[in-house]
Amino acid sequence: MNAVPDAILTLAANVRLAIFDVDGVLTNGQLLLGPQGEELKQFHVRDGHGLVMLRESGVTLAVITGRKSPVVAARMAELGIHFVYQGQRDKLQAFDALLAELKLSPAEVCYVGDDLPDLPVMKRVALSVAVADAHWAIAEAAVWRTSLPGGQGAVREVCELVMRARGTLAAQLAHYGAVA
Amino acid sequence: MNAVPDAILTLAANVRLAIFDVDGVLTNGQLLLGPQGEELKQFHVRDGHGLVMLRESGVTLAVITGRKSPVVAARMAELGIHFVYQGQRDKLQAFDALLAELKLSPAEVCYVGDDLPDLPVMKRVALSVAVADAHWAIAEAAVWRTSLPGGQGAVREVCELVMRARGTLAAQLAHYGAVA
Amino acid sequence: MNAVPDAILTLAANVRLAIFDVDGVLTNGQLLLGPQGEELKQFHVRDGHGLVMLRESGVTLAVITGRKSPVVAARMAELGIHFVYQGQRDKLQAFDALLAELKLSPAEVCYVGDDLPDLPVMKRVALSVAVADAHWAIAEAAVWRTSLPGGQGAVREVCELVMRARGTLAAQLAHYGAVA
Amino acid sequence: MNAVPDAILTLAANVRLAIFDVDGVLTNGQLLLGPQGEELKQFHVRDGHGLVMLRESGVTLAVITGRKSPVVAARMAELGIHFVYQGQRDKLQAFDALLAELKLSPAEVCYVGDDLPDLPVMKRVALSVAVADAHWAIAEAAVWRTSLPGGQGAVREVCELVMRARGTLAAQLAHYGAVA
Repeated sequence: MNAVPDAILTLAANVRLAIFDVDGVLTNGQLLLGPQGEELKQFHVRDGHGLVMLRESGVTLAVITGRKSPVVAARMAELGIHFVYQGQRDKLQAFDALLAELKLSPAEVCYVGDDLPDLPVMKRVALSVAVADAHWAIAEAAVWRTSLPGGQGAVREVCELVMRARGTLAAQLAHYGAVA
Repeated sequence: MNAVPDAILTLAANVRLAIFDVDGVLTNGQLLLGPQGEELKQFHVRDGHGLVMLRESGVTLAVITGRKSPVVAARMAELGIHFVYQGQRDKLQAFDALLAELKLSPAEVCYVGDDLPDLPVMKRVALSVAVADAHWAIAEAAVWRTSLPGGQGAVREVCELVMRARGTLAAQLAHYGAVA
Repeated sequence: MNAVPDAILTLAANVRLAIFDVDGVLTNGQLLLGPQGEELKQFHVRDGHGLVMLRESGVTLAVITGRKSPVVAARMAELGIHFVYQGQRDKLQAFDALLAELKLSPAEVCYVGDDLPDLPVMKRVALSVAVADAHWAIAEAAVWRTSLPGGQGAVREVCELVMRARGTLAAQLAHYGAVA
Repeated sequence: MNAVPDAILTLAANVRLAIFDVDGVLTNGQLLLGPQGEELKQFHVRDGHGLVMLRESGVTLAVITGRKSPVVAARMAELGIHFVYQGQRDKLQAFDALLAELKLSPAEVCYVGDDLPDLPVMKRVALSVAVADAHWAIAEAAVWRTSLPGGQGAVREVCELVMRARGTLAAQLAHYGAVA
């Protein structure tokens, strides 16, 4: 794994809730539209596996997205994502509701974003992460940037960062016979 | 943001109408065709957000494309693009009609293109922009080139360039808590 | 345009028939399959424009492909490709039939390929071209390689190479106000 | 072809069964989902041609994948893959069954993977291969890495490596008039 500064690992060690934007974070940002107005989406298989491991390691998972699509609901259900907020023009509202419901503080939250609508939430949480190809204002505001772009492994990096910091990565890897 | 020469910012400061080609500019140039002859298209989510901000900042938006597809109509409506010209073999005709309707001069127009059919309009407008992967003749003719390719952020760059030059970028960024 | 050796321009000047493989040459090689076994394909808009110009400049156009798909028939018809051979396990058979029908010699033919099934035809024609990401044996056998990969501009490069060598590029460019 | 160490060629010379993961190995890892929950997949045409040649050269072919999709069944049938195991949470089970049925030892098997679920099988076989963009733990565990990413030529590289080591590549190439 890439070298991660101790300060970031300290923030990641406190994470109990990981929130992800969808378009540009769980996807590469391409909106694939069909002739009847239907929307198709591409998710990366290795990102999905990271989310499953992070969930199994005891972290609560959520997505907050401005768009609305049945494909997102289906994929998030397949991965066992606990909370799925779609059609959120103002992401802070969903964020506040979620923290209240889970009785968590922003210090226990990681948020991964790529563009301006993610910024208000990113400024609140302790571990704000920008994907490698994020908008410049997001890259500047985040405390950590992934080395891979959105939809191409960025989410997997974050999942492993959090598990490593929390001390749960070794157990997940050991399940497959791998060593951290 | 990338450094932009003052001469380009001066041209961009006058823009009241921004016109975009579709295939190769708002998309990466790939025409995705299904078995019944239907066409699917991929648009980038961060380009879309740039267009919405540019529109909200007071610039009129238009697309002029040689092809014709219901997907383009749907996506442009979703983004609130004011004028959508499809099936235009000769783009100058739509361009002239649009300027007459809006009572604008070419000095107030930005056009973003990627290939030869864009050239006649690009030679007319003050701010002609080529996407990073444009045809060589377009790259040569344009007064500015984006650093990202079509369908992968080129349009977002142009939106922010125009807003910055017009002095409206800071307000758009501030809405999300970002600083220019 | 890229520098092209005089020897290649001499071969290209004689071209009266340009033949293209489909998958990996007119596309990026990805076979996109849907749940009912249907096949979707992606073609690049700038490649398409090059083919239209090459046809208008007086060169006969053909594709020879091992696969078979209604999407190919539809796109080739849209571009006005004169001869479309699908489902050709042995491409030499279609090649020989085509040359006999058109009363052309191999010295008047350009063929663009990416993989081993293209090799027998490539060894026959004067101007054999490999796309930038072709199989190593094709890259070695070809007299010229494009700088762009298949489905991403390789075909456009070949179209302009042939037009330039035949002295027809300037007229095509002039139509749009561009200079060679 | 790339230089391959003699030790790898020695392992490859013994291969009588080649097993491939699907997502991330035969594809680029993108799961393309439609609005009715249907899944589309992209396979590379040059990978497909490599698999056909490897099969014709006398090697038994299999895929073992954790997901389940009719598209995989259709494409694998088109390529003549002998054994297709889908929906395998534990890949070792399918692996053990396959070796028992074929009366082969792990020393006669090549496995190509990209992520942790592939690791248990990769640790068993003699020739374990990681695609160029594999997860770091897979890249570390594999005895060989391809130079191309999954879904973009990685499988073709493995097919040619095995054929070269077994002395069957020259005959396959000669069929098309190519020289090894």
